[in-house]
Amino acid sequence: MIKLNKAILPAGFKANGVKCGIKKSNKPDLALFYSTLPATASAKFTKNSILAAPLKVNKAQLSSGKHFQAVLVNSGNANCFTGKAGMLDAWLTVKKVAKELKIADTSVLVNSTGIIGKRLPIARMNNAIPGLVKGLSSAKATLAQKAMMTTDTFIKEVSVKFKIAKRTVTVCGVAKGAGMISPDMATLLCFIFTDAAITKQALDKALSVAVENSFNCITVDGCMSTNDTAIVLANGAAGNKLIELKDNYAKFSEALNLVCLDLAKMIVLDAEGASKFIKINVYAAKSRDEAKKVALAIANSDLFKTACFGENPNFGRIAAAAGASGIKVEEAKLKVKLGPLNKKHIHLSVGLSRGKASVTVYTCDLTGDYIKINAEYN
Amino acid sequence: MIKLNKAILPAGFKANGVKCGIKKSNKPDLALFYSTLPATASAKFTKNSILAAPLKVNKAQLSSGKHFQAVLVNSGNANCFTGKAGMLDAWLTVKKVAKELKIADTSVLVNSTGIIGKRLPIARMNNAIPGLVKGLSSAKATLAQKAMMTTDTFIKEVSVKFKIAKRTVTVCGVAKGAGMISPDMATLLCFIFTDAAITKQALDKALSVAVENSFNCITVDGCMSTNDTAIVLANGAAGNKLIELKDNYAKFSEALNLVCLDLAKMIVLDAEGASKFIKINVYAAKSRDEAKKVALAIANSDLFKTACFGENPNFGRIAAAAGASGIKVEEAKLKVKLGPLNKKHIHLSVGLSRGKASVTVYTCDLTGDYIKINAEYN
Repeated sequence: MIKLNKAILPAGFKANGVKCGIKKSNKPDLALFYSTLPATASAKFTKNSILAAPLKVNKAQLSSGKHFQAVLVNSGNANCFTGKAGMLDAWLTVKKVAKELKIADTSVLVNSTGIIGKRLPIARMNNAIPGLVKGLSSAKATLAQKAMMTTDTFIKEVSVKFKIAKRTVTVCGVAKGAGMISPDMATLLCFIFTDAAITKQALDKALSVAVENSFNCITVDGCMSTNDTAIVLANGAAGNKLIELKDNYAKFSEALNLVCLDLAKMIVLDAEGASKFIKINVYAAKSRDEAKKVALAIANSDLFKTACFGENPNFGRIAAAAGASGIKVEEAKLKVKLGPLNKKHIHLSVGLSRGKASVTVYTCDLTGDYIKINAEYN
Repeated sequence: MIKLNKAILPAGFKANGVKCGIKKSNKPDLALFYSTLPATASAKFTKNSILAAPLKVNKAQLSSGKHFQAVLVNSGNANCFTGKAGMLDAWLTVKKVAKELKIADTSVLVNSTGIIGKRLPIARMNNAIPGLVKGLSSAKATLAQKAMMTTDTFIKEVSVKFKIAKRTVTVCGVAKGAGMISPDMATLLCFIFTDAAITKQALDKALSVAVENSFNCITVDGCMSTNDTAIVLANGAAGNKLIELKDNYAKFSEALNLVCLDLAKMIVLDAEGASKFIKINVYAAKSRDEAKKVALAIANSDLFKTACFGENPNFGRIAAAAGASGIKVEEAKLKVKLGPLNKKHIHLSVGLSRGKASVTVYTCDLTGDYIKINAEYN
C-alpha cells in the first residue's frame, strides 16, 4: 500500500475549478469532479437537524439513484437556512450540470460551503457551468480543490494505491477544512474518488468505518456544521475483481481509512487560529463509545484548550473535563499522561481503569486568533 | 417582598474573614459563617464525577447530621484531586472549627475554591481558625465575602425580606463567581442564610427549584467544576410559624428564587474576560428539558459567543447550534429574534414551534481576554 501526499485522480475521473463570482474576493469558487463511467456512491452527512439545501438534495439523489457521475462544489455560500428557494437553487444546479454533461439528473450531487442564510447567485453559477464542464481534465484536481477552499491555508489531499491481484486500485481524497468558514460556518467537505470496482454494500460499510475513525474523531470547537459531507464515488475503472464484504474488503477499507484519517488530521492542523495539534488517547474504557465521550469532553474543554495554548500543564482541567463527560470516572483510578506542551504536536493519554476499549481523537488549542477570526469577520 | 443589594445577615448569624496565607497575594482567604442556633441545612453539589474533598465531606455530613451551625470557606486552593490526604485535611478543618466553636463535628460544613491538585496548608489554616472564630460578628459579612473571592471583581450579595404573619423573615445570599478561578478552575460557591423556621423537606424542595432556575441556567464556558456548591442554612430565629410544603411555602420559595437568580446573574456579569451579558429565552418547546438543551447548546457555542463579542449578528450560528443540540428543530419553524449586539446586555429569543415549554438561560461572550486569562495564568 503506497500513500502519496497529493491528489492523483484515479482512472476515469476528471476535475475543474473556476471563478464564477460567489466569493467577493474573486477567488475560484466553483468546482466539478466528474467520472466518465457511472460510479457507485456512498455518503455521510452532518447529524445537525438543520441541514443545508444541498445535503437534502444529495440525500434524495442517493436514495433514488444508483449511479453517479458528477460532484459539484461551490465555496463562499453554504446555501443553508435559505428555505424552499434554496432547495430550488440547488436543484437548478443539478439540472444545469446534468444538461451540460449530457448525463441523467439523478447522477449529480451538489455541495456548498460558506456564508449561511444567503441565496446562491444562481445566474452566475449557471453561466459558469458550461465552461466548467468544457475544461474538465484529469490534470486539474488542484484547480478544483482551490475552488473548494474558504479559509483553509493549504490544500488537503492524499492518495493511496494498492493492488488486487495484478490490478492497481487508487483511492484519492480531497477535503476542505473545519477552520471556520469565511464568514460564517465550520464546514467539512470531503470527496473521495476511486477506480475500484466495489459493491454498494461494501462501499457503505467502508465509508462508515472510515468516517467514524477520522472525521467523527476530530473537533475544533465542538460546533457541529449544517453542511458536513463526505462522499465517495467508485467507478470500477481499475478493472479489479469486484470488492465485496467478504472478498478483498480489508484492503480497500484500510486504504479508505488511511485517506480519511490523513485528511481529518490535516483539517485539525489547519483549524482557524490553532497553534497546536493535540492527540488525545483515552484507553481502558468500558466501551469505545465511553472512551470517545471522555476524549471529546476533554477535546472540547475551552479550559484544556487554552491551557495547551498557554503551555501550562494543568491536570485539574483534564480531570474536571473527564469527570464532566457523564462517565463515572474515578479520581483514584485516573491515569493522566501529558506530553510536553512547548511543541507543535501535543500528546495526551488518559486511562480510565474501567475496561479494555480505547479511542484516539484529534483537536487543536483555543487561541486569541480563533476569537479574532470569528469575532471580527466583518 | 423587599430586595436589597447587599448581604444582611439574618438574626442569629455571624461571619468573619481573615488572611491565613493560602493565597500568595496575601489577600483574605479564609471565611467562616456561623449560626448561633442549630440550623436546618440543604445543599446542591456539582454533577462532575470528580468531586473535590470538601464536597465529599459535606455529603457525608449532610447525610448523617440534622443540625448545622458552621460553614468554613477557603479560597486559593480547591482541595481537589488530592486523594486521601485531601480528605484528611478537610476533616481536620471540620474538627478544628467544631472545637473552637464548641459545637459538634457533625454540624460543620467546609468549602474550598482555587487551584486543583495541591494540598491545603493545613497548619496555617488551623493556626488561623481560633482568631477567625473569636472575631465572628453579625457585622462582618463583607469581610467573609472578601475571603471567598478569587478572580471575582465584585462581591456578589443579595438579601430578601418578607413577612409571615407579623414576623419578618430574611433570606441572605452570598456567592463567588464562575469566572475561572486563579489559576485553575471555575467554581461557583453560594451560601444562603435565613432565619426562617422551615422543615427540611420544604427547604430541600425550595433549594432544588431555585438552583435549577438559576445556577443550573447559567454557563460561562460549559466547563463543569469539581467544586460547585450551594448551601442554605435556616436557623428559625425569625420565630415565624413553621414553613411547610403546604404552608407559607410559596413565599419562601419565591424569596429563595429571587436570591439565587440574582446571584447567578451577577456571576455571569463577572465572568472572566466577558464583555457582554447574554440572556437566551427558548420558548415553544415540547418540554422545559428540551428548551434547556437548545438554550445551552446556543449558550455554549463558541461561534455564537464570539459573534456576540464581535457584535456581528449571525443567525446561521444560532440555527446551527440549535440544530446540533440533539433536538429535532425545524428550519422552517424556527423563530429567532436577536436584540442589538452593541449593548452590554444582549437578548436572544428562539421559538421552536414544538410545544408550550420555555426556559431562560444566561451566558456571556467569548473574548480575547478569556483566552489571555486562562492561557497565561502562570
